[in-house]
Amino acid sequence: MELTRRRALAGAAAIAAAPLVPSTAVKAAAPMADKQAPSYYRYKVGDIQVTVVSDGKNTSPLLDSFITNAKKEEVNAALEKAFLPRDVFTIYFAPLVINTGGKLVVIDTGNGPVANVNSKGAAGQFVANMIAAGFDPKAVDMVVISHFHGDHVNGLLASDGTPAFPNAEVLVPATEWKFWMDDGEMSRAPAGRMQGLFKNNRNIFEAGLKKQVTPYEWGKEVAPGLLAVESVGHTPGHTSYVLSSGSGKVFVQSDVTNNPNPFATNPGWHAFFDQDADVAEKTRRRVYDMVAAEKLQVQGFHYPFPGLGNVEKDGSGYRVIPAPWNPTI
Amino acid sequence: MELTRRRALAGAAAIAAAPLVPSTAVKAAAPMADKQAPSYYRYKVGDIQVTVVSDGKNTSPLLDSFITNAKKEEVNAALEKAFLPRDVFTIYFAPLVINTGGKLVVIDTGNGPVANVNSKGAAGQFVANMIAAGFDPKAVDMVVISHFHGDHVNGLLASDGTPAFPNAEVLVPATEWKFWMDDGEMSRAPAGRMQGLFKNNRNIFEAGLKKQVTPYEWGKEVAPGLLAVESVGHTPGHTSYVLSSGSGKVFVQSDVTNNPNPFATNPGWHAFFDQDADVAEKTRRRVYDMVAAEKLQVQGFHYPFPGLGNVEKDGSGYRVIPAPWNPTI
Repeated sequence: MELTRRRALAGAAAIAAAPLVPSTAVKAAAPMADKQAPSYYRYKVGDIQVTVVSDGKNTSPLLDSFITNAKKEEVNAALEKAFLPRDVFTIYFAPLVINTGGKLVVIDTGNGPVANVNSKGAAGQFVANMIAAGFDPKAVDMVVISHFHGDHVNGLLASDGTPAFPNAEVLVPATEWKFWMDDGEMSRAPAGRMQGLFKNNRNIFEAGLKKQVTPYEWGKEVAPGLLAVESVGHTPGHTSYVLSSGSGKVFVQSDVTNNPNPFATNPGWHAFFDQDADVAEKTRRRVYDMVAAEKLQVQGFHYPFPGLGNVEKDGSGYRVIPAPWNPTI
Repeated sequence: MELTRRRALAGAAAIAAAPLVPSTAVKAAAPMADKQAPSYYRYKVGDIQVTVVSDGKNTSPLLDSFITNAKKEEVNAALEKAFLPRDVFTIYFAPLVINTGGKLVVIDTGNGPVANVNSKGAAGQFVANMIAAGFDPKAVDMVVISHFHGDHVNGLLASDGTPAFPNAEVLVPATEWKFWMDDGEMSRAPAGRMQGLFKNNRNIFEAGLKKQVTPYEWGKEVAPGLLAVESVGHTPGHTSYVLSSGSGKVFVQSDVTNNPNPFATNPGWHAFFDQDADVAEKTRRRVYDMVAAEKLQVQGFHYPFPGLGNVEKDGSGYRVIPAPWNPTI
């Protein structure tokens, strides 16, 4: 055992520290960091480069009514089984920035600047993280929206109410657009959450974007390599995507499930935010049977960051296995 | 459906693009990124802040001799079951930077600058990523080494052969130190890999660090909150740690397993780099039974980044369930 230089220094420092005025020989303790790493992650799908850009998270108390057909205690048991804390539920948000080589495409936009302020930075991180990842919002060519919930569309507007991606074409599912812009649907919608969603969508798409959007149809490419796929139930026009280039292929599921714990492990559970829960469950089982059978990688908007994984059948449900983080690209 | 401003612009751009000399009205395609996000991740254990700092990865062809008691085809089947590519094996490396509030402590140092050059940046990323995370190597107070394999100790030296953490006390397991510094052990070691390890360790600890190290004993705190725990087999002095503060507790396993796929799923498989494979297996089962029973989070040096997870029993083996990425701290 050797007397180390550091030990010798520590001895000297102890002597130097004896006066009340600290000597400069005493090293200051390193400060604690106050921010997580900017949460973005890159991978390739053939010649296409995907960057998953976290919009952050929202943790709320687990409500009795959170899952309409399971008891709170059953939900807590499922969370515990997944090594997650009881009595709270965390939702993660992961928009994508896709560089097709010719076009810079954003899929969904996160919770936006108001949510960022209200959550003290926990949510609404998308623009800050995309800038950290080297992307200028002004360089975005297309914004593709999967469905019209606030965590997907609110980021379309900057804090001053103008378009956050001022040079981008905004593409929306035709069925979704028709539903939320239909005055009859709005007048028939129940008070509370559904009325709030209609009002929010009118504010974003009418007041903010002046209806400058391009509706798109399922079964067609909405951007190079990005095929729009019907996956309704969560909302009337809810859309997923198959992103492909060369032999690379990823299923961008949007909200076919929310956080896979507990919604992939328990595909029969109905979250209160699924507008047609029975149809959403059918879609969920159909999509997960397909991606499991085809061993097709899934990118999940509400999966924990970075949200890329594979799905396998597990008893009466499914298990999502995260893809290992690649420290290179 | 509205005619969008973007569509109108696209029309204008098409006209502008007609001449052979491209107009400035045609937007250049966004460049592809050439680097992954700096791979670091922060979390708290009580009052202690942990930053996992990736050193990168090493992917090599899957050798017939890689696992001494399983056939290559069995290993390939295990990789495939985990949705990993056949015929190659990827090892990840995740040193830690721990801020105890008073001390900045590094656990293990990665593959070092020579490996960084040789791997074209795939490995040896530790110092670059720790700087990206806001840490100055000069501010490190202590470097704690778990065992004397190159991917843990080579980063102790900078590219010029001087200490990479010039102000840090270097703490090493007493048993490990004794073994690798023993000339008798060295003279009896088989040629090839074991002789290479001895030579590498002599180069680092004698030529580089001039033996300026502090050996530590198991069962004692080596740094505030960091308890050294015997976990031998992988090497004679291989050490794990329990990091604790307040009610927070994490088991820092070092190399009790390598990548959990396939070494946690198949705990009876013996990797060629386990020096005493039978003892390593006993340690692996003992540790994994303990962390599974206690639901104790594990930080794994060779787990895919960020390498924090829980362990559950799964058939005759164990499954590691990654902790969800927290986009805040």
